[in-house]
Amino acid sequence: MLNIAITQLQTTSANPKINFERMKHFICKAINVKQDIIIFPEMCLPGYFNGDIWEQTSFLKECEFYHEQLRELSKNISIIFGSVGCDWEKKNEDGRVRKYNAAYCALNGKFIKNSKTNLNFWPKTLLANYREFDDSRHFYDLRKLAFEKNCSVQELYEPITVKLKNKKISIGLSICEDAWSENYSFSPVEIFSQYHKHDFFLNLSSSPFTLGKNKRREILFSQLAQKIQLPIFYVNCVGVQNIGKTIYGFDGGSAIYNADGTIQPAARAFEEGLYFTSALPTLSAEFPKNELDNTHVALEYITKQICHQWGINKVVVGVSGGIDSALSATLMTRILGKENVFLINMPSQFNSQLTISAAQQLAVNLDCAFASVSIEDSIKYSKKQFAAIEFQNSKQKVQITGFTFENIQARDRGARILAAISAALGAVFTCNANKTELTVGYGTLYGDIAGFLCPLADLWKHDVYAMAQFYNEVVFQKEIIPQTTINVVPSAELSADQNVLEGKGDPLIYSYHDFLFRSWVEHWERKTPEDGLQAYLENKIDNLIGCKQGLTKQLFPTKELFCADLERWWNLYQGLGAVKRMQAPPVIALTRRAFGFDHREHLGLALFTKKYCELK
Amino acid sequence: MLNIAITQLQTTSANPKINFERMKHFICKAINVKQDIIIFPEMCLPGYFNGDIWEQTSFLKECEFYHEQLRELSKNISIIFGSVGCDWEKKNEDGRVRKYNAAYCALNGKFIKNSKTNLNFWPKTLLANYREFDDSRHFYDLRKLAFEKNCSVQELYEPITVKLKNKKISIGLSICEDAWSENYSFSPVEIFSQYHKHDFFLNLSSSPFTLGKNKRREILFSQLAQKIQLPIFYVNCVGVQNIGKTIYGFDGGSAIYNADGTIQPAARAFEEGLYFTSALPTLSAEFPKNELDNTHVALEYITKQICHQWGINKVVVGVSGGIDSALSATLMTRILGKENVFLINMPSQFNSQLTISAAQQLAVNLDCAFASVSIEDSIKYSKKQFAAIEFQNSKQKVQITGFTFENIQARDRGARILAAISAALGAVFTCNANKTELTVGYGTLYGDIAGFLCPLADLWKHDVYAMAQFYNEVVFQKEIIPQTTINVVPSAELSADQNVLEGKGDPLIYSYHDFLFRSWVEHWERKTPEDGLQAYLENKIDNLIGCKQGLTKQLFPTKELFCADLERWWNLYQGLGAVKRMQAPPVIALTRRAFGFDHREHLGLALFTKKYCELK
Repeated sequence: MLNIAITQLQTTSANPKINFERMKHFICKAINVKQDIIIFPEMCLPGYFNGDIWEQTSFLKECEFYHEQLRELSKNISIIFGSVGCDWEKKNEDGRVRKYNAAYCALNGKFIKNSKTNLNFWPKTLLANYREFDDSRHFYDLRKLAFEKNCSVQELYEPITVKLKNKKISIGLSICEDAWSENYSFSPVEIFSQYHKHDFFLNLSSSPFTLGKNKRREILFSQLAQKIQLPIFYVNCVGVQNIGKTIYGFDGGSAIYNADGTIQPAARAFEEGLYFTSALPTLSAEFPKNELDNTHVALEYITKQICHQWGINKVVVGVSGGIDSALSATLMTRILGKENVFLINMPSQFNSQLTISAAQQLAVNLDCAFASVSIEDSIKYSKKQFAAIEFQNSKQKVQITGFTFENIQARDRGARILAAISAALGAVFTCNANKTELTVGYGTLYGDIAGFLCPLADLWKHDVYAMAQFYNEVVFQKEIIPQTTINVVPSAELSADQNVLEGKGDPLIYSYHDFLFRSWVEHWERKTPEDGLQAYLENKIDNLIGCKQGLTKQLFPTKELFCADLERWWNLYQGLGAVKRMQAPPVIALTRRAFGFDHREHLGLALFTKKYCELK
Repeated sequence: MLNIAITQLQTTSANPKINFERMKHFICKAINVKQDIIIFPEMCLPGYFNGDIWEQTSFLKECEFYHEQLRELSKNISIIFGSVGCDWEKKNEDGRVRKYNAAYCALNGKFIKNSKTNLNFWPKTLLANYREFDDSRHFYDLRKLAFEKNCSVQELYEPITVKLKNKKISIGLSICEDAWSENYSFSPVEIFSQYHKHDFFLNLSSSPFTLGKNKRREILFSQLAQKIQLPIFYVNCVGVQNIGKTIYGFDGGSAIYNADGTIQPAARAFEEGLYFTSALPTLSAEFPKNELDNTHVALEYITKQICHQWGINKVVVGVSGGIDSALSATLMTRILGKENVFLINMPSQFNSQLTISAAQQLAVNLDCAFASVSIEDSIKYSKKQFAAIEFQNSKQKVQITGFTFENIQARDRGARILAAISAALGAVFTCNANKTELTVGYGTLYGDIAGFLCPLADLWKHDVYAMAQFYNEVVFQKEIIPQTTINVVPSAELSADQNVLEGKGDPLIYSYHDFLFRSWVEHWERKTPEDGLQAYLENKIDNLIGCKQGLTKQLFPTKELFCADLERWWNLYQGLGAVKRMQAPPVIALTRRAFGFDHREHLGLALFTKKYCELK
């Protein structure tokens, strides 16, 4: 009987050396326990989310150097791994060298050649080009190659055939999207298995974590295994990779999907490891079934890994006494340790003793360093200095009022105090913005929208509350985030109009706007004011956006009120919100639509469609 | 004889209504002068760089509404235009409705149907997926459709056939990339013209300006016209569209490429207009032949248009007396008028009277408002306030020294003074960073890397000097940018080590680093330290990067010195520079690689390849 090992590798972006060393470690381990085949995930050698580094020839050569090292290691084991495959004789459609997202199989010190394509690797057939994926930007694929050669994909495919223990084994090869073919005109896995005999199928993946995705994955792969009547070995990576503005965790979830539709989980979520398919651990529940638990695990994993990758071990968090900064501080304390987290409260005359005390209490509960740094004198100084400005050649005066003064306060906190103190401490500071705020740009650039990372940017405000409560109730099982912070009305406390003691706060009604905004951002069929108004008129708006039944009518009894609110926020989402997002710090992705690279946008005026105007 | 009109339309992103109104205006004009056919550019109705707005069904329906309006207008003229084509029966590969980048032809109040595809539009065959282009993210194409139907692209193609003046006219259809097929496995235009008889060919484009691109375009299209022995009507749009971080100008350059290879320019660069092919204007030189002139025209056009689109008519520019801010101020004055530009000098003890006077002189020369706002007291206050911080639960002290104090100065200028004053004036402020600085993050986030726009971000430092001199010598023909500013050593003046009076300044040697960095960023085959070191060792480095012969060896006589410098900047380019670019303001694109969406990157450690380490 064949011994097959699966490696749920922790992959690092754009660093073949690091990835090779990890692979080598597991290969040696597998050889030691007499495994015949070891399987690694998609793009595990070069990393996957590498930006445009694929355009550097020296990077491709670096990958090929390590391919050779892996080939050398294959004398006593068959090694199957995902990497970039270059065809140096041919051009990519961008004029550079032709590259494939590919799978290699090395055995007896040689790469197995695909006799149909004459390449020493197996190209991916379907390329993902949505959300965070940019496959067609960099890679050629089997479909294009088939088109070029005027043949079908199955004519270019053959199983990976290895001779092991005097037996010929035919291994079916698919890479990630090849199995997620529901929206494509054909299913590579089904077609390949129709035309060829296989012993089992592989799916090498680099599939990032998304809330709810694992459930879809389980259904999809078990159905596919039943259809082709073959077991599918699903091998995904773990680790964290980013595309500049957006940071993704990879959750693994490697498993064997049996031909009868049953699932044999091979690996724990977010855990690197080598697993022997002949003796899989019995995992009662591979993924937390509860969404909050799932969010919590993913959030801590991704934040921890990205801090580690970026060499960050000390952090400053500006704490207002409000819920976002409290959650942020709690998260960072869990990740970096209480001795490496510095909480700073920055009061002005507009901050209530209630929230100041809550901030202080949070520090006590987390056992962190805490300091109070007032902005009162500095903002007064700025106001006075600006009022005294006399322009040469213009009678223009500088009057600081209203919003301008609010923003001065926010920037005094972010760009003056937090940026300087964190630099002086050899630390960085967090941006505590949540998804609701970032959607409509409710925050000040270079003020509270500043920092090295927005860990909470893919949580809606109600998710932030739920997560805070989860920390208190489940993680700590005591009150760490003060009840005052949970109870107080959410407020920026930048003016007398935002006095929490009088119950005044944010202009957002989170129980409604969270859901409205989600319909714009996260629904796969993206909603717009037209859809909202139509649903409002048909009394279906609560269903459409998923808020509490009856809430919308209660908040906006008339069409006029509904539209005024809708237009205000839609203008901000498409307008100033987008402007601010362009300069916001990187975000951690959790949902199926995170800001940044996953949510591409242009900067311009918000559009209200003809139909919206008519309905109105 | 047929009267054919070409419309070099000014297209706005994501606003079918505005684009329709402009199209209607030109259609009416064309009807008035008895034109038979009017041709518009690619994606001129919906706009092209629309981010992910394509995912909104209501946006697609909005486009279709205006398609119907255009159909109505076709009773007395044949209208050919580019827009999105939806096949509501089919799925895109992202699971949403299937969309094509398409061309429509309406005549006699009806859309002409393509009998081969059964669609009432003509799909684009080749989709661009490099640089700023994301076509495969949103659109299906003729190649995929052919693959799906198991046929060739030519079997799905037919000419647009219209009956005009009792004559049947066969019009060949291609959209932008379809003609730029040099790197593809086939040329749609050549294949289509082999299989079908045409009277002439169209190429509808939305092709952004890039320095040097027009020359390539002229060669490519005149060769193509000769190959197919048919005239090609090249119809491009003008205007400005952005992809969040990166702003592109469209230069038009619409022309007729004759079968004999001659070119009949139809339209001036960057000018909207309707042109009658029966009586084309005689344009002596459609594009400025000189690169500086070209840069100047593009830079002013794009900056002007984007300010207009964003409703910006008043601007604050922080002026240091240095070259970047002087060019920025000059540019903004040209665009918004001197009465709408406010120059602010923000001296500390480290600023020399030399540069302060130069800043003042610039304001006099430009006839702008000018004010001096000192940062001396505020930065001293901050230093003192931070030193007095006592943390509860930690003995950590906050010492402000060196870099930290330099950054405090920069942020005091950007986030405290410029942000507040511009807000108070109802203005915005510019970020004056150039491409050299942005490559390696030489600047302070929330300080000098802040503002609504980086107009100079696609100019290397030597380009900034050349452009400043161009303004003085060619545009104004007198000294507007003070000679002191041009002569003084470039310096941030943030410490005594950057004293310009002692000739001390930036750590960058622009005559060398500009070219080194360009090889990393702009070369189509992207260079890395490995390539640089290899060339250095072979005495070919000056050739590789394009700097003055002999300069590199003069600066770095030994390999050790060369490598130390190389590694310092490569680490910054891939590391902190990338971190800062993520939060930098949007940039204007001029070259064939601009930062932002055109230069996708991940945030991580810089890679030094195995080969580099060996060479070293």
